[in-house]
Amino acid sequence: MNHPDVLERLRSVLGRGLITDPKALKPYETDGITAIREVPWLVALPDSEAQIEAVLAVCREHGVPVVARGAGTGLSGGARPVADGLVLGLSRLNQILEIDLENAVARVQPGVRNLAITEAAAAHGLYYAPDPSSQIACSIGGNVAENSGGVHCLKYGLTVHNVLGVKLLCIDGQVLQLGGKLMDSPGYDLLALTMGSEGMLGIVTEVTVKLLPTPPCKRVVLAAFSEIAGAADAVGAIIAEGLIPAGLEMMDGLAIQAAEDFVHAGYPTDAAAILICELDGVAAEVESDLALVSRILKAQGAFNIRVATTVEEQERLWLGRKAAFPAVGRISPDYYCMDGTIPRAKLAEVLASIGQLSEQYGLAVANVFHAGDGNLHPLILYDSNQAGQLAGAEEMGGRILELCVAAGGTVTGEHGVGVEKLDQMCVQFGSAELEQMHRLKAAFDPQGLLNPGKAVPTLTRCSELGGMHVHNARLPFPNLPRF
Amino acid sequence: MNHPDVLERLRSVLGRGLITDPKALKPYETDGITAIREVPWLVALPDSEAQIEAVLAVCREHGVPVVARGAGTGLSGGARPVADGLVLGLSRLNQILEIDLENAVARVQPGVRNLAITEAAAAHGLYYAPDPSSQIACSIGGNVAENSGGVHCLKYGLTVHNVLGVKLLCIDGQVLQLGGKLMDSPGYDLLALTMGSEGMLGIVTEVTVKLLPTPPCKRVVLAAFSEIAGAADAVGAIIAEGLIPAGLEMMDGLAIQAAEDFVHAGYPTDAAAILICELDGVAAEVESDLALVSRILKAQGAFNIRVATTVEEQERLWLGRKAAFPAVGRISPDYYCMDGTIPRAKLAEVLASIGQLSEQYGLAVANVFHAGDGNLHPLILYDSNQAGQLAGAEEMGGRILELCVAAGGTVTGEHGVGVEKLDQMCVQFGSAELEQMHRLKAAFDPQGLLNPGKAVPTLTRCSELGGMHVHNARLPFPNLPRF
Repeated sequence: MNHPDVLERLRSVLGRGLITDPKALKPYETDGITAIREVPWLVALPDSEAQIEAVLAVCREHGVPVVARGAGTGLSGGARPVADGLVLGLSRLNQILEIDLENAVARVQPGVRNLAITEAAAAHGLYYAPDPSSQIACSIGGNVAENSGGVHCLKYGLTVHNVLGVKLLCIDGQVLQLGGKLMDSPGYDLLALTMGSEGMLGIVTEVTVKLLPTPPCKRVVLAAFSEIAGAADAVGAIIAEGLIPAGLEMMDGLAIQAAEDFVHAGYPTDAAAILICELDGVAAEVESDLALVSRILKAQGAFNIRVATTVEEQERLWLGRKAAFPAVGRISPDYYCMDGTIPRAKLAEVLASIGQLSEQYGLAVANVFHAGDGNLHPLILYDSNQAGQLAGAEEMGGRILELCVAAGGTVTGEHGVGVEKLDQMCVQFGSAELEQMHRLKAAFDPQGLLNPGKAVPTLTRCSELGGMHVHNARLPFPNLPRF
Repeated sequence: MNHPDVLERLRSVLGRGLITDPKALKPYETDGITAIREVPWLVALPDSEAQIEAVLAVCREHGVPVVARGAGTGLSGGARPVADGLVLGLSRLNQILEIDLENAVARVQPGVRNLAITEAAAAHGLYYAPDPSSQIACSIGGNVAENSGGVHCLKYGLTVHNVLGVKLLCIDGQVLQLGGKLMDSPGYDLLALTMGSEGMLGIVTEVTVKLLPTPPCKRVVLAAFSEIAGAADAVGAIIAEGLIPAGLEMMDGLAIQAAEDFVHAGYPTDAAAILICELDGVAAEVESDLALVSRILKAQGAFNIRVATTVEEQERLWLGRKAAFPAVGRISPDYYCMDGTIPRAKLAEVLASIGQLSEQYGLAVANVFHAGDGNLHPLILYDSNQAGQLAGAEEMGGRILELCVAAGGTVTGEHGVGVEKLDQMCVQFGSAELEQMHRLKAAFDPQGLLNPGKAVPTLTRCSELGGMHVHNARLPFPNLPRF
């Protein structure tokens, strides 16, 4: 595509904030899921809302697709560019506009890093709860786009539960003020609709987030199991007891070994699975919960239960979990990180099925995940230099997501749909839900200029896959072709 | 309206569940806000999803408006019938379908009473958190329609934060499965969109709610202040300290006196305002929070701080608050309960302005409200037998809602918009937001058959009011005409 007038108008708006040089465009071809890539026509790096408005006006008038991008850490290809489109990078809008203590909220620009909010609030004893693994780098705008989670979302919720307001710039130039500093807002909940909408309904130019008091006390316990099923069942038993830990993570044998070899966290490498449980609150509450969790873990057959007694030991227990992904990267040339969610009651069953898929495809799987909320992250190990392994990993990943749906779960936990999971949306939803999503998209963006081709598959795509709609644990197509 | 074929088809679907007799229709003419009334053409009382589907099909084919109704306890006229329409009463769908302990959720039909969920879960040490005052009677379907709150929503959130899934029957006959038992769901968040949508997007036929562990310990403290502003500032000080009480309620002098005369709760009738603060959790946490709250209350100038030492005393402290509305009903022939929300920081200022309005209109106001989340419930006392007082109360109520918007707040806290607050929606939102809401409605219900005329005003209505859109504390029209 080449529109001299588009370029000229954008240049006059953006100056050096417009990138057209192919070498400079290259870093924008992919987000965190690097197997999915496309070099965009243009990249715009506005530094004000006024510039964003002007860029959208040009794109609207000339029919140029717009792909919003935060920090580029997304894991489902939500910010993958389109070849004839513009990437709207929001990293320069990185100001914390207000920390309002009386209302316990922060008002920030979309390019502010997740962790920067907590850093700014920490002096006041407050923090922003959702903490994706990428929190040091990922932006709050990207968190809104993907409805991001993190280790602590079991207790504190996803992005949708922690954002009180956004300013949404629509493709028609209208500015919507959605929500604010308060819990409720009248009318249809356009605010919640914006969460997880992957930049397809509008451009978020401001976000107001809830700040929570920093818990005065944290304790961490690690439990080792000789069977994966034992660890899985312990997760359900903890929740069924009425406990909501701040975090409840699980790692299987392969992940344990990889992490231990990498960071020497002191993990029991003879375990088939470990659970790491963090409890937070006031000291007395945490201690009584810790005692109860320890009793449950023991009753569920944990052969080794270790409670960190110092802050250093706590950090060491977490270190292995936090380093698990790069640790797996050390033992395999490539890995593919999946993201799906299942009811806790099905953990043992689904993990066993993933094991069977692993054998069937001849690809090892390491499981490192948010067990408490049933949010699986199977890492499929493969070697892209071995013919067929990438395709095998992708196919197997799709099968895992379909397993999640069949178990009564969903094809995403916290990474969004992007382009990665378009086919599985055909499994998750029937034509009624998907048609309704398309009608809703058209009500915001009738030309379909905002992030085209993401998150919600066309019905044609779904029907080409050979069938649609699973509810009540019926799996429709065992041999899906993959993208 | 009279369509013999409509009646015949509905009769064959519903049998005795179709009401056409004018005397039997009369009880359905209003919901909890009895000043807003209209006798419907028909009332349908289906007892199954299949019947609802069949009723919707008839209405769709014949263009009959459909107003869904739960228990009829709503306070904004959301279930007010339309004269040529059908009221779809959902009270017969009152089954608790499942209590799933491992996932800590309940799956229920829409007609199940709010409190019935907690009663069913109590044996397992669990409960459903949102607790509107009407919880003994109101239905979960109605809670979804209005995004209901309650005393404890400060800590535990509104309906939108506690519902994980709904089954939504659309007017075109499609059934949408939105969410489920899990926290996240891919695609646009149609689930959250359903919350507070007042039956205008579809009919909710099943609801899956989160269950929380019953807190093992509760403590209640009452503090008396000689100035309303002192109590208001104490609310902000408690939150700014990082505490999130389970409930933090405020009553002003008139409400205190009325409640005390009615139930003899032992309230200090010499106080200009009292705060009632409930803390919950494990005992040690609650005790340390209680000590901190007491210190803050004292530092903020409370002249009387009373901590309940027995369960009976706790119940007595709550009794006055819970009986406050009927207590006000004893001292005034009529009262009009408003519902708006403001940032906590503006409590003192807005309460002072409400006092000025009270003088200006010559109508007393009693304030009894959820101070912790800034959710005001001014009760305007009037006598409908005195010429002009009803109109005065309605006009003054509108002014109060506009004050809320001007203070950076919203025109609803937990009662929804219904028909009551249509004019104030013109103050809350600009044409951009309202247009977008109408586009969204059309994407669900292009014929506009579902609960027409509620929640989102037409732009014509707004422009007839003489102006639109306040942001940043500018009040556009001081002398609005009222409905």
